[in-house]
Amino acid sequence: MQGPTRSFASDNNSGVHPKVMAALAAANRDHVLAYGDDAFTQRAEAKLREAFGAEAAFLVFNGTGANVLGLQTLVRPHHAVLCSEHAHIATDECGAPEKHLGCKLLPLPAPEGKLTPAMLEAPLHALGNEHHSQPRVVSITQSTEVGTVYRPEEIRALSDFCHAKGLLLHMDGARLANAAAALGTSLRVLTKDVGVDVLSFGGTKNGLMFGEAVLFFRPGLAAEMKFLRKQGMQLASKMRFVAAQFDALLTDDLWRESAARANRMAALLAREASKVEGVKLARDAEANAVFAILPPETIRAMQQRWLFYTWSEARHEVRWVCSFDTTEDDINRFVADLRDAQRASKKG
Amino acid sequence: MQGPTRSFASDNNSGVHPKVMAALAAANRDHVLAYGDDAFTQRAEAKLREAFGAEAAFLVFNGTGANVLGLQTLVRPHHAVLCSEHAHIATDECGAPEKHLGCKLLPLPAPEGKLTPAMLEAPLHALGNEHHSQPRVVSITQSTEVGTVYRPEEIRALSDFCHAKGLLLHMDGARLANAAAALGTSLRVLTKDVGVDVLSFGGTKNGLMFGEAVLFFRPGLAAEMKFLRKQGMQLASKMRFVAAQFDALLTDDLWRESAARANRMAALLAREASKVEGVKLARDAEANAVFAILPPETIRAMQQRWLFYTWSEARHEVRWVCSFDTTEDDINRFVADLRDAQRASKKG
Amino acid sequence: MQGPTRSFASDNNSGVHPKVMAALAAANRDHVLAYGDDAFTQRAEAKLREAFGAEAAFLVFNGTGANVLGLQTLVRPHHAVLCSEHAHIATDECGAPEKHLGCKLLPLPAPEGKLTPAMLEAPLHALGNEHHSQPRVVSITQSTEVGTVYRPEEIRALSDFCHAKGLLLHMDGARLANAAAALGTSLRVLTKDVGVDVLSFGGTKNGLMFGEAVLFFRPGLAAEMKFLRKQGMQLASKMRFVAAQFDALLTDDLWRESAARANRMAALLAREASKVEGVKLARDAEANAVFAILPPETIRAMQQRWLFYTWSEARHEVRWVCSFDTTEDDINRFVADLRDAQRASKKG
Amino acid sequence: MQGPTRSFASDNNSGVHPKVMAALAAANRDHVLAYGDDAFTQRAEAKLREAFGAEAAFLVFNGTGANVLGLQTLVRPHHAVLCSEHAHIATDECGAPEKHLGCKLLPLPAPEGKLTPAMLEAPLHALGNEHHSQPRVVSITQSTEVGTVYRPEEIRALSDFCHAKGLLLHMDGARLANAAAALGTSLRVLTKDVGVDVLSFGGTKNGLMFGEAVLFFRPGLAAEMKFLRKQGMQLASKMRFVAAQFDALLTDDLWRESAARANRMAALLAREASKVEGVKLARDAEANAVFAILPPETIRAMQQRWLFYTWSEARHEVRWVCSFDTTEDDINRFVADLRDAQRASKKG
Repeated sequence: MQGPTRSFASDNNSGVHPKVMAALAAANRDHVLAYGDDAFTQRAEAKLREAFGAEAAFLVFNGTGANVLGLQTLVRPHHAVLCSEHAHIATDECGAPEKHLGCKLLPLPAPEGKLTPAMLEAPLHALGNEHHSQPRVVSITQSTEVGTVYRPEEIRALSDFCHAKGLLLHMDGARLANAAAALGTSLRVLTKDVGVDVLSFGGTKNGLMFGEAVLFFRPGLAAEMKFLRKQGMQLASKMRFVAAQFDALLTDDLWRESAARANRMAALLAREASKVEGVKLARDAEANAVFAILPPETIRAMQQRWLFYTWSEARHEVRWVCSFDTTEDDINRFVADLRDAQRASKKG
Repeated sequence: MQGPTRSFASDNNSGVHPKVMAALAAANRDHVLAYGDDAFTQRAEAKLREAFGAEAAFLVFNGTGANVLGLQTLVRPHHAVLCSEHAHIATDECGAPEKHLGCKLLPLPAPEGKLTPAMLEAPLHALGNEHHSQPRVVSITQSTEVGTVYRPEEIRALSDFCHAKGLLLHMDGARLANAAAALGTSLRVLTKDVGVDVLSFGGTKNGLMFGEAVLFFRPGLAAEMKFLRKQGMQLASKMRFVAAQFDALLTDDLWRESAARANRMAALLAREASKVEGVKLARDAEANAVFAILPPETIRAMQQRWLFYTWSEARHEVRWVCSFDTTEDDINRFVADLRDAQRASKKG
Repeated sequence: MQGPTRSFASDNNSGVHPKVMAALAAANRDHVLAYGDDAFTQRAEAKLREAFGAEAAFLVFNGTGANVLGLQTLVRPHHAVLCSEHAHIATDECGAPEKHLGCKLLPLPAPEGKLTPAMLEAPLHALGNEHHSQPRVVSITQSTEVGTVYRPEEIRALSDFCHAKGLLLHMDGARLANAAAALGTSLRVLTKDVGVDVLSFGGTKNGLMFGEAVLFFRPGLAAEMKFLRKQGMQLASKMRFVAAQFDALLTDDLWRESAARANRMAALLAREASKVEGVKLARDAEANAVFAILPPETIRAMQQRWLFYTWSEARHEVRWVCSFDTTEDDINRFVADLRDAQRASKKG
Repeated sequence: MQGPTRSFASDNNSGVHPKVMAALAAANRDHVLAYGDDAFTQRAEAKLREAFGAEAAFLVFNGTGANVLGLQTLVRPHHAVLCSEHAHIATDECGAPEKHLGCKLLPLPAPEGKLTPAMLEAPLHALGNEHHSQPRVVSITQSTEVGTVYRPEEIRALSDFCHAKGLLLHMDGARLANAAAALGTSLRVLTKDVGVDVLSFGGTKNGLMFGEAVLFFRPGLAAEMKFLRKQGMQLASKMRFVAAQFDALLTDDLWRESAARANRMAALLAREASKVEGVKLARDAEANAVFAILPPETIRAMQQRWLFYTWSEARHEVRWVCSFDTTEDDINRFVADLRDAQRASKKG
């Protein structure tokens, strides 16, 4: 296949950041104990704990693993996890949470991808009634699956609500770096400081080869995690190579530099694409993803030349995602093609 | 920690083969689709299918994942998996098979780590009786957890037995490369050609950074695997980086070169160590692991200087594993220390 | 508590039909083999197969068990079960399907509690995409949780759709007897003859002490059921006492007599209640349940005197269920109280 | 089939005690709320709590359900349950514990069916090591599967050991009544008073139609049980009919009367059978089961006339179980046949 070599389909279509590759090469010397009992891992975990003000940090292979295992520390099978209808855990993990946790997900309508305390009231009526799965965790995604970003005070409102009701707050932070870069905050300000209990912190979508971290913000919650990770098939034997990547990501705020670049490119793309006649933004591009509505024939024409996904067939909505290595030139060529396609489809 | 930098604790204490690192670097260009829908993955899978004569090949993160998912294609929760009492799936995966398959493992006594058809007769009495888990799969490990190697005809006897009884044969080939190198056979001769149904083919212990493959030798068995892999949290998003490693491993038989080196070092270690007075081999070192019996005080002294595990406290048996990068110098220094320690303990 | 002794809360608030009690007493002689290997069970299963034209029948303890085990013969964890948003399996079994099947339920909006092929189209877009749970079974409830009844041709349309798409049709027939009585059909006309693949046939809500049956309409589907039932904790040791009850239920169409009586009482209640000013039926009472909308203060007053549940707080909708032993006198007293309460609340 | 009508195959081949039938009939009046929210259930649970000195009692359908749910309150999937190699949970529940708990059972050699603290030491080496399932519960059976009985002080030794190590003690008391009758103790003396944490108390094998109880002896342990029972498909809707049976069982110590009768018959059978030349008891018959070793041709001849199971083909060991309704006449006829069969086989 002589296919397109720049993609807006997902931030996991990009490769590995050069500094991460360098860190992998540097870690490749000598023998060290496996399964995380090594100095690389100790160092990366310490850096993670420090960056987030977390009690404990665990490295895993991928985002599904991070979400499932983090949630597993919080639930038993008779519990329910409340989440947005767009939540990746509910829609894109082939039922992994149901399989591994044995519990029900309760997806709630959330037009902008964001939950609010008011949305959570109704499902809580089930509490105490043995005929219904018991709400136990609220899971939010930051930045959301539809490109929006929770403000710190919005997260605090959710965590206050959860804790008042005896629930816990989980964050799928596959793109937390993009949210923090967009808001200009530290990672801690969006998690520990606003009451998040357990976090999946994504690396892969932000320039790592593979690897995610699960962080715990309450003493005690992490007690079983090392067993769950092993049993959950997410314990890397040559752990130093996950650790070295996170070390690099947290060195000199590489995470922010990469995420900010992706966000900037998304903002540029949103601005330029929305100037094309017939192209409308579905909502503001707050992080590194642009959602746009355009004529179906234009979508088809563009998908001949570029990789990206249709988000909603019904609404003619597409998703364009920028990565740490997206360039202005990528944007310019993409928008030029968009303009051409749109012009052609109007003629057609 | 200023610890030892050469280890005999496990072949996953070693790093990444330089050719594999080079392949990772070479794969790090451009954007490609995620989750295996890319040319790197197609190429690696094709090479795997060809090397093994397999119907289908799937790349996963780690050995537990490879074993669990391969078995999951074969069993339902009311089934049982028969295996050796030493089987990694039974002893070292924190109950992952029970958790993910929901079924029972039936570990059978197997002094040399190898099953024979005769050992499987008794558990088959349960067949058809709904009060008992139904034997469905026999899982063997090649090379075994105690350093022995199944001959092709031994595997064929097991697969013939299994198929005659309506059972399937699974192989945990975390160290299959070592077995093939030891016997001087192709990978196919030890799997497809002798009736194996599903295989975990290990990469990590043989010089990869991470990554294992699951191979299917019967049409149909792999039909659900892509869903199981995703749900099983074993689908890498940047799959090209698993694929590139397997491509390298199968190029110019790198797998054999690395495994043969590890085997050769183990043979050297076995020979030299057994010359030390008071040190006895527990059994022949057929692959890359040496099991030796030595005085407890010598074990303690050696573990001050070198990384390795006690296999059986009761029998004073230790395990020494060689890797693709173990050197003659490592062996010489290790045996010299062993001789010193042994001498000291006799004096003490 | 000196509470009410007649209840409209559920048809499982009633006791055991006298003919069923007599059958239990008659079965209580001698020793017989346990776990269904007895003549009582053979006879009951044969009667069930004959009444439904089924391939196989299995007796279990309760409705959740019948639904979960029937579905378990059809799905693997990566599958999804499509059902109505009102489906008992989705709302009232404390997540039992998710726990035991490991798979996702996809509840679909269905205002009258009934699915149609058109409602099933959208979720099928997931087919073949490993990121999404794979639709595999459509589960319908007959009569539905909101008191409506599928006509045979409606079920046939669903089964044709399912089979054309490679899906299977499951029916939760906890109140199938009420549906057949309402439509004046045989049990077979609503199941086997219109393409149902697996059925839960309810006994408990229709005068049994305990016991439900799972029926299979396709050769092969039942092959694993005996193991799933034992492992699923639903195999009664003294099985003859489940069997004797089903034998009685199928003798001289006791099932129809009891269900018709319950339906008749519900029709009477619907007619009389709807004459009370301020009381409106939420929908036609097609089987043995009446859904009515009435002022909240009337609901409160009535719940002081009678047992029944509020179905929707928001809509002021209540559910009144009639049983095999509900009498005209029960209805008359209930409606008289309703009239009083309504009059009082208007004055108040 | 005109088969045998008295059986020594199992105590669940018997029917229902007349007093239990009477209690069922008495409970069959009026309507009551379902799922245990009724006066019958409150009364039975109170009687159970009182008889055992327990914190909480829950009624379920069957023994597998009682064991699985009781254990489920104690374990998470990464735990292991230690039990005897003869344990019903390990050998006769079709892998239900593995399926529902997701965790590993570790069966230990126990020639007389009884565990001791010394037997538990070795598996505890796994504690804290994430590669191994973590021992969490010890499960013992009283009376055991091989007809022996734990003395109170033996149970106390186990519970002390468990609690000192951070483990919990579970008792499968499917035949606890037989043990208490044999030892002449109360039910409490064998459970609460000697440190049992969770108990399955069997009813079905002791004259009930169906029904078992799960008792909790520590505050807190039962907190999730009502949800686990519902999700675990073990919540009876017409609960009063389980409750009424337990009420009868605990009235005037019916449990002891029935169990003592079964024990007495077993003792008689053991004494008389052992007088037959060529018949040898495998071990003392301490409760209601006799294990005997006899020539294979005698086993075959007797199984033509009587229902009972071969326990070990290899050792020519059979199991004969007596029930609450076994009579001296049953024993006399059985032993007479045994004498005949034995005489014939010697001639043959």
